[in-house]
Amino acid sequence: MLISAPHHDAITEVARGLYAAAARERPALFRVRGMRGALLAQALDDEALKRALFQFVDVLPQLDGAGAIARHFGAYLRGRPLKGPWGRLLALGEHPLMAWAVRASVVRIARLFLIEESERAVAAIMREVGRAGASVTLDAVGEAVLTEAEADEYVQRYRNVVAWQANAGGRPNASIKLTALAPRFDPIDPEGSTARALARARPLMHDVIAHGAALTIDMEQHELKPLIIATFRALVEAYPEPGWQPGIALQAYLPETEQDVADLVQWARALGRRVTIRLVKGAYWDTEVALAAQRKWPVPVFVDKEATDASYERLTRALLAATDAIHPAIAGHNLRSLAHAIAFARERGVSRDAWEIQMLYGMAEPLQHAIAQTGTQLRIYVPTGELVAGIAYLIRRLLENTASTSILRQTYVDGRDIEALLAAPRGHEHTPVPPAPGRFTNTPLLDWSVSGVRTRFAAALASVRGQLGRRYPLPLPAGAPVAGEHRSVNPARPDEVLGTVEMTDAAGAAQAIERAARVFLQWRETPASTRVALCRRAAGLMLERREALAAWEVLEQGKNWREADADVAEAIDYLEYYAAEMERLDGWRDTMSFAGESNMARWEPRGVAVVIAPWNFPLGILTGMTAAALVTGNCTIMKPATPALIVAHLVHSILVEAGFPPEVCQLVPGSGAQLGDTLVDHPDVQLIAFTGSRDVGLRILERSAKQASGQLHVKRIVCEMGGKNAIIVDDDADLDEAVLQTLHSAFGYQGQKCSACSRLIAVGAVHDRLVERLARALDAWEYGPPEDPRFVFGPLITRNAQKKVLEYTGIGRSEGTLAYLGRVPESGYYAPPAIFTGIEPRHRLAQEEIFGPVLSVLRAPSFDAALGIALDSQYALTGGVFSRFPAHLALARARYRVGDLYLNRRITGARVGAQPFGGYRLSGTGIQAGGEEYLKQFMWSRVVTENTIRHGYVA
Amino acid sequence: MLISAPHHDAITEVARGLYAAAARERPALFRVRGMRGALLAQALDDEALKRALFQFVDVLPQLDGAGAIARHFGAYLRGRPLKGPWGRLLALGEHPLMAWAVRASVVRIARLFLIEESERAVAAIMREVGRAGASVTLDAVGEAVLTEAEADEYVQRYRNVVAWQANAGGRPNASIKLTALAPRFDPIDPEGSTARALARARPLMHDVIAHGAALTIDMEQHELKPLIIATFRALVEAYPEPGWQPGIALQAYLPETEQDVADLVQWARALGRRVTIRLVKGAYWDTEVALAAQRKWPVPVFVDKEATDASYERLTRALLAATDAIHPAIAGHNLRSLAHAIAFARERGVSRDAWEIQMLYGMAEPLQHAIAQTGTQLRIYVPTGELVAGIAYLIRRLLENTASTSILRQTYVDGRDIEALLAAPRGHEHTPVPPAPGRFTNTPLLDWSVSGVRTRFAAALASVRGQLGRRYPLPLPAGAPVAGEHRSVNPARPDEVLGTVEMTDAAGAAQAIERAARVFLQWRETPASTRVALCRRAAGLMLERREALAAWEVLEQGKNWREADADVAEAIDYLEYYAAEMERLDGWRDTMSFAGESNMARWEPRGVAVVIAPWNFPLGILTGMTAAALVTGNCTIMKPATPALIVAHLVHSILVEAGFPPEVCQLVPGSGAQLGDTLVDHPDVQLIAFTGSRDVGLRILERSAKQASGQLHVKRIVCEMGGKNAIIVDDDADLDEAVLQTLHSAFGYQGQKCSACSRLIAVGAVHDRLVERLARALDAWEYGPPEDPRFVFGPLITRNAQKKVLEYTGIGRSEGTLAYLGRVPESGYYAPPAIFTGIEPRHRLAQEEIFGPVLSVLRAPSFDAALGIALDSQYALTGGVFSRFPAHLALARARYRVGDLYLNRRITGARVGAQPFGGYRLSGTGIQAGGEEYLKQFMWSRVVTENTIRHGYVA
Repeated sequence: MLISAPHHDAITEVARGLYAAAARERPALFRVRGMRGALLAQALDDEALKRALFQFVDVLPQLDGAGAIARHFGAYLRGRPLKGPWGRLLALGEHPLMAWAVRASVVRIARLFLIEESERAVAAIMREVGRAGASVTLDAVGEAVLTEAEADEYVQRYRNVVAWQANAGGRPNASIKLTALAPRFDPIDPEGSTARALARARPLMHDVIAHGAALTIDMEQHELKPLIIATFRALVEAYPEPGWQPGIALQAYLPETEQDVADLVQWARALGRRVTIRLVKGAYWDTEVALAAQRKWPVPVFVDKEATDASYERLTRALLAATDAIHPAIAGHNLRSLAHAIAFARERGVSRDAWEIQMLYGMAEPLQHAIAQTGTQLRIYVPTGELVAGIAYLIRRLLENTASTSILRQTYVDGRDIEALLAAPRGHEHTPVPPAPGRFTNTPLLDWSVSGVRTRFAAALASVRGQLGRRYPLPLPAGAPVAGEHRSVNPARPDEVLGTVEMTDAAGAAQAIERAARVFLQWRETPASTRVALCRRAAGLMLERREALAAWEVLEQGKNWREADADVAEAIDYLEYYAAEMERLDGWRDTMSFAGESNMARWEPRGVAVVIAPWNFPLGILTGMTAAALVTGNCTIMKPATPALIVAHLVHSILVEAGFPPEVCQLVPGSGAQLGDTLVDHPDVQLIAFTGSRDVGLRILERSAKQASGQLHVKRIVCEMGGKNAIIVDDDADLDEAVLQTLHSAFGYQGQKCSACSRLIAVGAVHDRLVERLARALDAWEYGPPEDPRFVFGPLITRNAQKKVLEYTGIGRSEGTLAYLGRVPESGYYAPPAIFTGIEPRHRLAQEEIFGPVLSVLRAPSFDAALGIALDSQYALTGGVFSRFPAHLALARARYRVGDLYLNRRITGARVGAQPFGGYRLSGTGIQAGGEEYLKQFMWSRVVTENTIRHGYVA
Repeated sequence: MLISAPHHDAITEVARGLYAAAARERPALFRVRGMRGALLAQALDDEALKRALFQFVDVLPQLDGAGAIARHFGAYLRGRPLKGPWGRLLALGEHPLMAWAVRASVVRIARLFLIEESERAVAAIMREVGRAGASVTLDAVGEAVLTEAEADEYVQRYRNVVAWQANAGGRPNASIKLTALAPRFDPIDPEGSTARALARARPLMHDVIAHGAALTIDMEQHELKPLIIATFRALVEAYPEPGWQPGIALQAYLPETEQDVADLVQWARALGRRVTIRLVKGAYWDTEVALAAQRKWPVPVFVDKEATDASYERLTRALLAATDAIHPAIAGHNLRSLAHAIAFARERGVSRDAWEIQMLYGMAEPLQHAIAQTGTQLRIYVPTGELVAGIAYLIRRLLENTASTSILRQTYVDGRDIEALLAAPRGHEHTPVPPAPGRFTNTPLLDWSVSGVRTRFAAALASVRGQLGRRYPLPLPAGAPVAGEHRSVNPARPDEVLGTVEMTDAAGAAQAIERAARVFLQWRETPASTRVALCRRAAGLMLERREALAAWEVLEQGKNWREADADVAEAIDYLEYYAAEMERLDGWRDTMSFAGESNMARWEPRGVAVVIAPWNFPLGILTGMTAAALVTGNCTIMKPATPALIVAHLVHSILVEAGFPPEVCQLVPGSGAQLGDTLVDHPDVQLIAFTGSRDVGLRILERSAKQASGQLHVKRIVCEMGGKNAIIVDDDADLDEAVLQTLHSAFGYQGQKCSACSRLIAVGAVHDRLVERLARALDAWEYGPPEDPRFVFGPLITRNAQKKVLEYTGIGRSEGTLAYLGRVPESGYYAPPAIFTGIEPRHRLAQEEIFGPVLSVLRAPSFDAALGIALDSQYALTGGVFSRFPAHLALARARYRVGDLYLNRRITGARVGAQPFGGYRLSGTGIQAGGEEYLKQFMWSRVVTENTIRHGYVA
């Protein structure tokens, strides 16, 4: 679709005309007088001030009372070189006048971009815009939709907006985000998501059709794009009535958009339906880049902003060349980009009615007026809503208006030469930089927005289903005693047998240990580079089979697709990370050599390592501990938990397939009762790596410290135990984030994570709203067999686990108040998720690890008190804080002493390397897995000193 | 003593004359034809080849048989680009012809520098030298003197040399090293050393006086210089007979020599005795620099070689200006230096008889001839002896002849322009570089050759004696129960009470722990920088009081001066090293941050740390563990061993004086039986750092792993236990070194070190000679109260220790053969040192830790077998190897898995930082003290992750 641009002179001519018209007035933002204006003007020149200012504006809507506003304003802006009246107010400290002035200023700035959500305000804006020769499209902005009620409310707001426009005598035109229509709009479940969105849109569509309105679907994050486009198409197809005007927004910063446009044009032509495509540059650039970096996904956007501008012009031409199928809405504020569109439309002879320009309310008003005067159709995008709810929108607009690359700023503030502004953008190549070889990077999680990924996963599930019912023989040499077998079942359907696993007993365990001890004398001489290569080979095999491995976890452990995939990725990460770490730690290092004396140290493997792993991360934790033991040169006995025996077989067979000798890497399936003590007590065992419950951990620590007869070493115990983790939600927290992340932290994988949030500590007045949103948000998610991606929450692992959770639910009822109890299927090991309020720090629900979907909410009068409650625990594993008060975040950093503390983020899902994992107190021994100290526990250190002086000659 | 040099032209004139005369012939070394010549010529151009060649020549005399020679030759020279016949021989592998050819070549090269020690050879050389117009001085070279018998033999050899010269009709002239006269010629005991040397010299002096001979004392390492000069003066004063000619050599590379010359001139004048001063450049430059680097002593020599040349000329003039008192013997081979001397002597009108030039036999013979022709007196220094014994001498000469800065090489090989050779040397400043601030360097041990150091130490001992008999009250708050007292006695004189120390019991220990637990909550918030500063202040206090602290150890632990000083230095090192380490480990470190997500980790203190320390390094180990616990932010309970309670009081009071709060750093004196279990069991204890016996260590490990009621953490145990350390002496070992270093390793501090050598494994034929020299060397050292620096060996620590050692001596008599038993004083806790041969690996003497002066010798048929025996132990702490076969050293490096392995060095005396200390198996947990992993054990690690994306804005 290569269409030539208009001649540069043609564009320049249009642009000069627009510029001349616009230059006569300054846009509203830069006209704001007094204190607000002073602050904004300063922020343009000071990145740190800008950051502080935006962080303050971000938290402002949440702040309750003058004191809170003054404190936050001081916290963010104190020490900044504030000039003028702001500086004087800041010096006043927590003066109520300051708080009032600040809030009033921000509201006034907000109202430049965001109108009141009322029939009166809608009518007024329609009149105002109409007077300028333009029309509007309205958007209702607000908080993230986390609950069904919130989605219902949104739909009602849109129905109002449409009705108010109709009442005011215009053809209603609205712009809507699909995520506002469904709390669960998730690419992993596209059919369900589309269905849920369409269902909720029904009353709105009734009104849209009735009023012959236009409805444009806004584009959101890249991850949601396929789902948004698919839902848009489904919506159009579901409502073939010709009277309404469907539309969708596409983002020029995505290289993919070119293809999306082509596909939509083809689809519209086939459908015989002309649809609006709103072309925007894209508003999530920062987030897209950051998330891609964190997730190790390819960066989906053009990294160079000029490439986005070039793309925008190419797409403009493509759309204007397809007006038979498309009504192009070229949305933007860039003088060059818009002049390009107008010049191209003129050159192509596109009629005035066949396309339009769209601009945001409050942005570049002089340019709006100039455009309207050219005779081009202009539509103003007007958000409606409250300041509190519209904050994300407001911040995005402020950023756009003051970014140093912004054309608005260049034009109106910097007073740049117009020629520079009108240069044609160069289209840069979009070439992602591959990571440096040998350097560890996390394995990217699967991108569920890609349909091929979903298809492969579904196929893997089907393939695994075809392998059910197999027998897993004892993977030990002939002669090892078979002592029973374990029937592995699907916890979502306990009558479905996945396979039968042969188990051994104490005698078999002892045989394996003694075999390992014999082979250790050779194995420890293997070069580290060989062991590293074997780990990397195993990682490669897991990567190849990631869907199949995850599918087994879906069936054997009841994990949903996403959780299962994350566990596979973690297993791969451990293999890769420990391989890289072993490369770092291998070899001789100079401690302090002098002329005539060399002093070199190195690490040595310990001997026979027993790895006792839990069932909840059956790949990640088992692989992690085993990889650490193997790569450091130990012989390893893998003792997996019984509910994860099939997955353990898969891990073991991959390690052996990768090349670890079977006698070096032995799987010993068996019940803890039958062989656990043997693994711990045996005199040939040198190291035990354990992850599991506190009671088993303490038992292992105690037994292993007894010197067995013939034992020639002190056993080393690597021990990760439980947690009773708390999230503190401060009174200034971003509730959208706090609710969503707490939900995942507390109920992800049914709470069966040692890192899970089990206590929620609400500071001050935030309590009620927090609990209410949390309960409703939880209620939006369905429980069911996790094979179906529709179900986020699945069963517990065993009947016993289910019983235990139900017992704690009973205790919770007596200790506190049941704020929410979920609904779960009748068959399978499900337990309904529960939220209890009124829990006190000394209650059992606040002290005991439950390992299930039970969340206790505690109240704290202050952040300090909340920290005290959070730390009042025998455990110290993970913790979380949602706060936007810098002093509280600093306090948490300093005093909230847990292994992994997360600020303004969920507290589960630690990633290898970035978030070394493990706790203190009764959670563990304080050395973290997936961190640079971990491998050293599997080794011991020795030094070789050589005197190199011989008869006075220093060699 | 600034005396102007002769005019440059005068020097040049003499030099040109000498050069012209010398240029007619090439010196003997460069005349060597054939294979030897080819190899040497190549070595001049290839540093690696030169090193390999000299290492091979170093070991050659020790090699027994053609196979051994061929193997070593191959090992050192294989892979080198050897040209000509050597290359072809090397390709033959272990061909007997090659071994023969190699040995013959080296012998022939050696004979260029070293004559046979026989009356015939002496007469011949005197004739030969006489014919050239010169005379000789003879030196008997050989092995290091380690035993009285060896010293007696040396004296006899010198008597022969003197007699042979007299028989040949000349006035005998001999040069002797004082270290050859006494196996214990030690600056720490100057009076005793001088007395021993003079006593042994008596028969030789009888002959010297009888023959009217000249006897010159050679200078040796800088550390011995004051003692050598003092002994020389004592010798001259003891034999006032005028008929003999005394002399001493001084080294121009020492800046101090200028003062030494002035002192000797003054002394000689006062005595009315003209003495010879031989001026040499100095032959120990490499060693002096290396030892200074290792000991952190100031480098005693000019670092720049040209500065040495300038010093040499200044000293030449000083000596030639003092011929009333001094007979200058200007020894050297540098054309410029010698021409300077001749020109100056001429200018001053010094008569021919009043001075002489000395040159080495075999060196720069053309120059020798040229000098003799000028009419200047010339004396040739001729070493006599066997190749084996003269190897150190030979290597030094080879190095001198082929060093790239050597004037010999410049003249005869490189063919440099004579003008360049005759430039006046520039005298560079002698400015040592101070260590970088903040970077750890070991505390220099005291330099006992400095008389002020000895005086201060003796004064400190006297001062400590004045403090005996004091009472040491319980250093705990009022109310802590006093449960008995300990009378600390001098183990060398058990009826001497040093002081009375109050002890507490389990209740007192529990009080201290609970007090510590309370204060920890504040203490852990102390910035690391404060704790670091307090450690450094404590180190400073210890450094100020080092003599007093060491003096207490002499009295309370029976350590000799040197051992006591080393323990103080180690204590200071631990404080400084852990302070520097804590600076390194402090603060937040980035694990892996991304845009929008910061991931930071840090270390945290654990809580209450109990430090249980042994008595054998009462300062070093107690301070080390305590410093580690304190600097990492733990509250510390110090539980010292009872036989070290006074020293523990000193350590504790210094820590408190430095500023550690008394409730943070508590000393809990008491018997292990009374309060040990409380310290281990108490639920508030989070960490136990223990150094001591295996049985107590294992008991602590077992008890501490039981979870006490109310205990909210897993206890961490830092545990260093015993050793049964072996030294392997290979059949090619340098026996001078092996014997001396084994002696120190096995019997230093009476064997009361966990690092001590307790097994000696002799490979093959080396056994008998090794045991014999060892026994005789041990016999040369006396036992007695260590207050007197004459006594190297003192008492054991207690009556019980004495009993235990005597029991093992009994067991040794039944298991093996007593090869040596020492004599010790009757009173005091002495135990005679014992060496047993015929010990087998399974004998108790080869397996059990004795912790006393008992050495078991085992035989091994091969190095491999020796390694097997060495590793056949429940312990793996230290180990040693004396070998010069590269493959054996490599094998030891790879397979001799002990905490601290020492190659060709003693196995005790690990230095903090350079040799992190600690073992594996039942010796310890494999993390080494004084190393970069140690502090981490006293902390736990936590991570803080912050999401910094707020509403799409990445801060």
